[in-house]
Amino acid sequence: MTVTALPKGRRTRDAVLTRAVELACRVGLGGLTIGSLADEVGMSKSGMYAHFGSKEALQLAVLDAAAADFATRVVVPALSAPRGEPRVRALADLWITCGVERQPGGCLFVKASTELDEQDGPVRDRLRDQHRQLAASIARIVAGGVTDGQFRPDTDTAQFATDLHGVMLAMYHGYRLLGDPAAEHRARSAIERLLAAVRVEPSAPAADHPPAVPAAPDAAPDAAPAPDAPA
Amino acid sequence: MTVTALPKGRRTRDAVLTRAVELACRVGLGGLTIGSLADEVGMSKSGMYAHFGSKEALQLAVLDAAAADFATRVVVPALSAPRGEPRVRALADLWITCGVERQPGGCLFVKASTELDEQDGPVRDRLRDQHRQLAASIARIVAGGVTDGQFRPDTDTAQFATDLHGVMLAMYHGYRLLGDPAAEHRARSAIERLLAAVRVEPSAPAADHPPAVPAAPDAAPDAAPAPDAPA
Repeated sequence: MTVTALPKGRRTRDAVLTRAVELACRVGLGGLTIGSLADEVGMSKSGMYAHFGSKEALQLAVLDAAAADFATRVVVPALSAPRGEPRVRALADLWITCGVERQPGGCLFVKASTELDEQDGPVRDRLRDQHRQLAASIARIVAGGVTDGQFRPDTDTAQFATDLHGVMLAMYHGYRLLGDPAAEHRARSAIERLLAAVRVEPSAPAADHPPAVPAAPDAAPDAAPAPDAPA
Repeated sequence: MTVTALPKGRRTRDAVLTRAVELACRVGLGGLTIGSLADEVGMSKSGMYAHFGSKEALQLAVLDAAAADFATRVVVPALSAPRGEPRVRALADLWITCGVERQPGGCLFVKASTELDEQDGPVRDRLRDQHRQLAASIARIVAGGVTDGQFRPDTDTAQFATDLHGVMLAMYHGYRLLGDPAAEHRARSAIERLLAAVRVEPSAPAADHPPAVPAAPDAAPDAAPAPDAPA
């Protein structure tokens, strides 16, 4: 088999997965098959089966690769920013960059979400779980700002996560389908309004909560997940 | 041919288009072919060709049918509400209902937008134009509230249209993919915040603008499109 002749099978698999994510962005996750991927990367179908086992296993591996790509580009680097508003801003900035630069991982999540929304099965379940985890991560990052006293104590962190996701979906739509040159600017304006709505103004410190303090520059462990964040 | 034997060819075509919109929601607009539609409705391929001529013409007809469906369910009835905030609320309510009831027309617009965003050609161009028209319609409805003095004179009507669209995309995502029981509630909360941000408070009338007056109950011609609305 082709695969056993290759050194560093794992690296090959990762490289194939990167191409698979790009292919899935073009043809849809449902259009991604062992055969179409073999054609795309110029390898044998038997080699693809050796790596992935089945079409469904391939689709799951592609979703995992896309999730890892999004985490590496957006979520993980955002955690290096100081907790609270700087971290929310870092997350939003990196997310916008990911959308504007058309990274296949981010794109696949948007595309697969509408493609799979009525197709029951393990692939849809995986995508749903990944999106729930993303929403929970955003809610935790916002909750860090509440803990630090930067955001209002009554901030609905899950609502913020949903609202931010909507802003990003609208930007993706405006930027990619409509070709709207104002898409990125509108997304940034919307994010400013989201932040203004939860920010504790210096003139109105929240009672019963510690005053705003400079956020720690390190990526300290986040606050516990918001109670309403998905498990 | 099957078609010529049918009375009321136009009604048949409309009925076939309704099924075609539903089929496109399931298989994607790209997966909608003359053959797959013929199978779906139990008619001959030659009959389908007589109605639509080509796959591309079928896809364009399906987009037009979906747009007409969305206009009939959402935009046109909203115009019966009094101008300004009541009309914006009517639009949002009807749009939410359309999403929650999973109307194929509304769904197809969401799905086709991500499916086609990189596929150049007449079908993508039609979808882009339809979305631009929707954004312009929303902006005009908001502008009516500015003209009436209900909304702030500096309201960015195109921004409002983008923000409302993002709220709806997030609701669709939460409701359909995530199965989030709070999806509709969150959308309504987000819309309240959008309205609060543009509403002229009774205690702070806008200078140089007419005071708020009761909106006309009829669907009077709207204000001119916002200057930044797409043509």
